[in-house]
Amino acid sequence: MENSRGYPRRVKDVSLEELRDRLAEFARVRGWEQYHSPRNLLLALVGEVGELSEIFQWKGEVARGLPNWSPTDKEHLEEELSDVLLYLVQLADVCGLDLGQAALTKILKNAQKYPINPKISATNNFPNSYP
Amino acid sequence: MENSRGYPRRVKDVSLEELRDRLAEFARVRGWEQYHSPRNLLLALVGEVGELSEIFQWKGEVARGLPNWSPTDKEHLEEELSDVLLYLVQLADVCGLDLGQAALTKILKNAQKYPINPKISATNNFPNSYP
Amino acid sequence: MENSRGYPRRVKDVSLEELRDRLAEFARVRGWEQYHSPRNLLLALVGEVGELSEIFQWKGEVARGLPNWSPTDKEHLEEELSDVLLYLVQLADVCGLDLGQAALTKILKNAQKYPINPKISATNNFPNSYP
Amino acid sequence: MENSRGYPRRVKDVSLEELRDRLAEFARVRGWEQYHSPRNLLLALVGEVGELSEIFQWKGEVARGLPNWSPTDKEHLEEELSDVLLYLVQLADVCGLDLGQAALTKILKNAQKYPINPKISATNNFPNSYP
Repeated sequence: MENSRGYPRRVKDVSLEELRDRLAEFARVRGWEQYHSPRNLLLALVGEVGELSEIFQWKGEVARGLPNWSPTDKEHLEEELSDVLLYLVQLADVCGLDLGQAALTKILKNAQKYPINPKISATNNFPNSYP
Repeated sequence: MENSRGYPRRVKDVSLEELRDRLAEFARVRGWEQYHSPRNLLLALVGEVGELSEIFQWKGEVARGLPNWSPTDKEHLEEELSDVLLYLVQLADVCGLDLGQAALTKILKNAQKYPINPKISATNNFPNSYP
Repeated sequence: MENSRGYPRRVKDVSLEELRDRLAEFARVRGWEQYHSPRNLLLALVGEVGELSEIFQWKGEVARGLPNWSPTDKEHLEEELSDVLLYLVQLADVCGLDLGQAALTKILKNAQKYPINPKISATNNFPNSYP
Repeated sequence: MENSRGYPRRVKDVSLEELRDRLAEFARVRGWEQYHSPRNLLLALVGEVGELSEIFQWKGEVARGLPNWSPTDKEHLEEELSDVLLYLVQLADVCGLDLGQAALTKILKNAQKYPINPKISATNNFPNSYP
């Protein structure tokens, strides 16, 4: 069974709560919680966004689906995307915030801010400042 | 029932797959898919990381749990954390990559790279280049 | 008189030392030096890089010289480029480093790392990890 | 002779115009201009900001002047600060903008936006959104 984009549907989705708990345990058993202050994690996140950008920096426009990318390049990209996510989850965690719930709330807020209007052309409707 | 950090456990976790599907639908019904090229989404992500950084920029060191932050400031932070996440999920999606699975794989890889060693002090064990 | 790219040559160049001194004075007379710790300035820099990215985020590939950009858009871009520069200059300053000299040194180092080789095609010669 | 912060005054300041011309020549003789589109350079800049952030990421608050940093660490920081600057200069150049003049203009604009007011305490006067 596949979803609308053709991904094979996994038996079990990966939740933000699961990632948060795994990462908290990962840091705890290594004695690393002492380094995980909000601003340390934020700068680590910025570092990973930099590595993510490096993958795309000399490529000019890149097409959806990454045609012609090698499996190695895709795996590298998966790792950098993951690194950004893992620090984001940990940053939210040490701030005591529920990232998953916040994300759902933000999607609802965006839906109210940008109502669907079939009479306006998509081009005109698209906000530069979105979101 | 609470988990190890004392969060009330939600009835339903928020999964990366759910966010991905909601965001894909959000863009589709607004005709915005045409703007969601990988590099456009990457730059939008960088923009949101900038807004996230602005929240922390003049604060000096910030303690875990954000003591003394107002509810308004915390809500603002939740929104910026969410914006980063939402673009990250969409970037992975248009690249055809499974972010949740990639994140779990990266955690396993990190666990192998940084084995737990109780004999080494945490300070010496902590890698500057982590991850 | 014009230089190789056709800019009108100014009577007086703007030096990094001049910017540094003006910015140090700007902060001093406002009593803002207390906020200008290295990590505060770094996060402010990241914030400005985010604003710079927002200008480019939905545009797809942008041609050199920005054809079709309005004067207002170009002025906005000049402001964001400047904001990044101003924080970078201040960050180097509070770290006690000489940014201009460091930049010249880095150019020389890059020249040694990437020697000019007319026999190798430019495409093969271009390093993905540059610099 | 020294300036207000005690730097030895160099015989010759490093100007943004000089850096721009050197970098343009550097790219030209290597046949690299073809890669220097605005968005490529912007993403390269983001990559360097990431490397700059990595230097500071696990350090907690860092004092002005970087006491206790080794010469090697300071040299590394100088290189990353330079990399950010070099891409910023090149980005402005390929956009056809005069970065030095823009920076001076922005300082003047900031001076008008934030007038010096000795009667208001520095703390109240400091704008979170500055600049």
